[in-house]
Amino acid sequence: MIKGKHLVAGKWVGGDSLFESSPATGPSHKFSVGNTELVNKAAEEAEEAFLSYGYSKPNERASFLNKIAEEIEKRGKEITEIGSQETGLPSQRLEGERARTVGQLILFAKHIQNGDYLDFRHDIALPDRNPPRPEIKLIQRPIGPIAVFGASNFPLAFSVAGGDTASALAAGCTVVVKGHSAHPGTSEIVAQAIDDSIKKCNIHPGTISVIQGGNRDVGQSLVQHPLIKAVGFTGSLTGGKALFDLCASREEPIPFFGELGSVNPMFILPKAISNRTKEIASGWVGSLTLGVGQFCTNPGIAIVLDDENAENFIKEVTTLISEIDPQIMLTDGISKAYRSGCDRMSSLNAIKCLENDNENSRKALPQLFVTNGENWLSQKELSEEVFGPSGLVVKVADFDEMELIAKKMLGQLTCTIHLDGEDQHKAKKLIPILERKAGRIIANGFPTGVEVCDSMVHGGPYPASTNFGATSVGTMSIRRFLRPVCYQNIPNSLLNHDLISN
Amino acid sequence: MIKGKHLVAGKWVGGDSLFESSPATGPSHKFSVGNTELVNKAAEEAEEAFLSYGYSKPNERASFLNKIAEEIEKRGKEITEIGSQETGLPSQRLEGERARTVGQLILFAKHIQNGDYLDFRHDIALPDRNPPRPEIKLIQRPIGPIAVFGASNFPLAFSVAGGDTASALAAGCTVVVKGHSAHPGTSEIVAQAIDDSIKKCNIHPGTISVIQGGNRDVGQSLVQHPLIKAVGFTGSLTGGKALFDLCASREEPIPFFGELGSVNPMFILPKAISNRTKEIASGWVGSLTLGVGQFCTNPGIAIVLDDENAENFIKEVTTLISEIDPQIMLTDGISKAYRSGCDRMSSLNAIKCLENDNENSRKALPQLFVTNGENWLSQKELSEEVFGPSGLVVKVADFDEMELIAKKMLGQLTCTIHLDGEDQHKAKKLIPILERKAGRIIANGFPTGVEVCDSMVHGGPYPASTNFGATSVGTMSIRRFLRPVCYQNIPNSLLNHDLISN
Repeated sequence: MIKGKHLVAGKWVGGDSLFESSPATGPSHKFSVGNTELVNKAAEEAEEAFLSYGYSKPNERASFLNKIAEEIEKRGKEITEIGSQETGLPSQRLEGERARTVGQLILFAKHIQNGDYLDFRHDIALPDRNPPRPEIKLIQRPIGPIAVFGASNFPLAFSVAGGDTASALAAGCTVVVKGHSAHPGTSEIVAQAIDDSIKKCNIHPGTISVIQGGNRDVGQSLVQHPLIKAVGFTGSLTGGKALFDLCASREEPIPFFGELGSVNPMFILPKAISNRTKEIASGWVGSLTLGVGQFCTNPGIAIVLDDENAENFIKEVTTLISEIDPQIMLTDGISKAYRSGCDRMSSLNAIKCLENDNENSRKALPQLFVTNGENWLSQKELSEEVFGPSGLVVKVADFDEMELIAKKMLGQLTCTIHLDGEDQHKAKKLIPILERKAGRIIANGFPTGVEVCDSMVHGGPYPASTNFGATSVGTMSIRRFLRPVCYQNIPNSLLNHDLISN
Repeated sequence: MIKGKHLVAGKWVGGDSLFESSPATGPSHKFSVGNTELVNKAAEEAEEAFLSYGYSKPNERASFLNKIAEEIEKRGKEITEIGSQETGLPSQRLEGERARTVGQLILFAKHIQNGDYLDFRHDIALPDRNPPRPEIKLIQRPIGPIAVFGASNFPLAFSVAGGDTASALAAGCTVVVKGHSAHPGTSEIVAQAIDDSIKKCNIHPGTISVIQGGNRDVGQSLVQHPLIKAVGFTGSLTGGKALFDLCASREEPIPFFGELGSVNPMFILPKAISNRTKEIASGWVGSLTLGVGQFCTNPGIAIVLDDENAENFIKEVTTLISEIDPQIMLTDGISKAYRSGCDRMSSLNAIKCLENDNENSRKALPQLFVTNGENWLSQKELSEEVFGPSGLVVKVADFDEMELIAKKMLGQLTCTIHLDGEDQHKAKKLIPILERKAGRIIANGFPTGVEVCDSMVHGGPYPASTNFGATSVGTMSIRRFLRPVCYQNIPNSLLNHDLISN
């Protein structure tokens, strides 16, 4: 079933240079390595396709999105099998992620049909005014071919037919996807679903191409291709920042929508920790270790007042964490980075609570570290993300120090407050600080589990994302791939259907 | 009346280093040169002010905006006098621009009171769903202190209290303005109006500071200050690109909203040029020479089919242009750049139609050049802006060549089509090309005269602007200074008034 090829404008293309997948379990497969030539071809075809797809009607694009959802569902068993082998994630997770992916496609199909996303505006002509006002109409238009990067940690929901692709296609943009080399087989099956959808809907085959990675050139040439008009990316700070710089230094700079990483701090206020020690501890451990901690919204830091409740909380968390078996991570590289991240914590005077050394393998044990506010404030590296199931408790001397830590936090995807009764006035002081740091503020909950809805913001100030004005989850994410155009005194006969129907 | 000082957080601050203004007419004045220390102070005060102003109610900000409008009107005579002296623009233009500036402030005051700009979204809790959905609310929040650069060519509407400042203040952001050294006196009088408005409305004095230029350090340190969260800029491609690069290379990159320049091509179709030779010629000459051609939307290039009608059109334009007296430009530097821009045209085989050499002075004569499509297509420099009243007619062999020129155009603020009757089907082919090139498409009109309204887009693909998703004119320009934040499961008692009233 696996061809090991790229889908470039409706054709399956291979080549001599191959890489082998490194599945957690099951057989490996050989895949053609992507290259600049394939990127160029895909970008040119995406531009050609835009000339029709960019002017398609919302209901045509909705049918296409729904068809992709249907074709993915058809391949559900196959996707779960290979996805689970490649990533080491349990079948149940792959099934849940598939439901989310299919749900996103269907949500965008609905979203564009009501037309609100067009943001239609109309100033009527005022011929008798001095000076006269011409008639002006405005709508949002798709921006052209988009580059989408598959993410290692969401083989479906942030990959070939994930949120970036779904929102770009919904907007009327065409897409060139770079598949992540951690799950090339999963990418290919989804590409097969897309291929069939394109044929069945009679859409221009250049509308989506999927190029496998295996070579740094693919990503670099993709973001630098003159026909590419924006980039959707979920991944590491280092990789994302390098691509952001390439986008900014192009002859024509383009927006790079990168979702890069976050430690998602939780501020646990005195009444809450005292009333609900066990509840918050078990909630945190659940969220921290979910999916082996490989979520962008993994809550890596808990800030608590240094008192008896903190000690009880740490004890409780330590016990819960010590009961968790080692779990396999997405790639060898990620598990290696996780181990060195944990070592870094120790080297920065954060005290390790468990004697559970991680072996030199792809399996990881959750870790817990404790430090005080002074140490955290004086060592910037303690605020950096450790990707994986590692938690850091920061014990602060008083609420002033907690506030100071909030102020010193870098940009985040989420910030959480746990509060009960009398904590209200403390929470009231924290919220104005935290809402400048993050795209999503949560009370008495945990940040993992990102709802795909109208009001979701999955983004935040740098380094959480490279565009604090954007979200990569939820219906508002379509705005990344639209630009406003206004039409002054243009006769109706020359306006496209989106302007006419309004 | 002129203090020659900076307004930094409610205090008028001077210094030893001075520069002298170079007015076109009337007396010069001495002004304190801006520096990094002043920028730092202003940015810190803007951050401090944001803690209150960023949480003010829309009607409080509306009163403030209306008060600034009132205080500017009060100083109308004084502003017109010094503005006209400094820029060489006629009094009538200064009065018109003041009306526009005041109108913008009042428009934004109205705009924020209806609340639509908040983009409120609400997904209700679904506790019985599996998994349960928490309640999520979203609004747009102001992003923090903004840097605004005064433009040379709009001493009021794109300067101290111009569109960037008005939209930023409306959003709830605080502002540090760098005044343009071409009109420091005008900037100061407007700063005086702001100073009085701050006092009368009891607003934090750090809400707006105005620092005079005279030194490159001011702009550079302003865009690099860690507390500055975005930049609004109107100016040259070279200057803007340098600041854009500084913004992208910051430790925390920030958006640079630069409106950089445009040649605003006009495509004149066969029926239109044949039916309305004189009307289009006189319209073009009017738009081209308005304000000595110193508008971002100045239509610098006309593309016509190479036939008898083109010759008649060129003859007509030449006659009209030859009747125009030399007019004074904004600065010595601008008139010098205009002369060398015209020389460049000649050196690129564009034929000069008038024997009216510009003298080596601040006064400029309009110029007209003619070239053919082949020459234009082979020399990229012919597509670059000449800031001033210089027009280029490109005669094309056929409509295919016209289409090709449209495709090869760089990003523009505006593109215009002149069409009559049978030109329809040609126009229909051009529009999909042109709407990818520009923020505004015009039929049978001229691009100068930018309406300040809901449906205006003043922006476009690079190099017209650095953010094709944004506009710097009209109510939509407020979006540049907002970012979405969502609130998950936050009790009402902790939400701010914008979330409660919705």
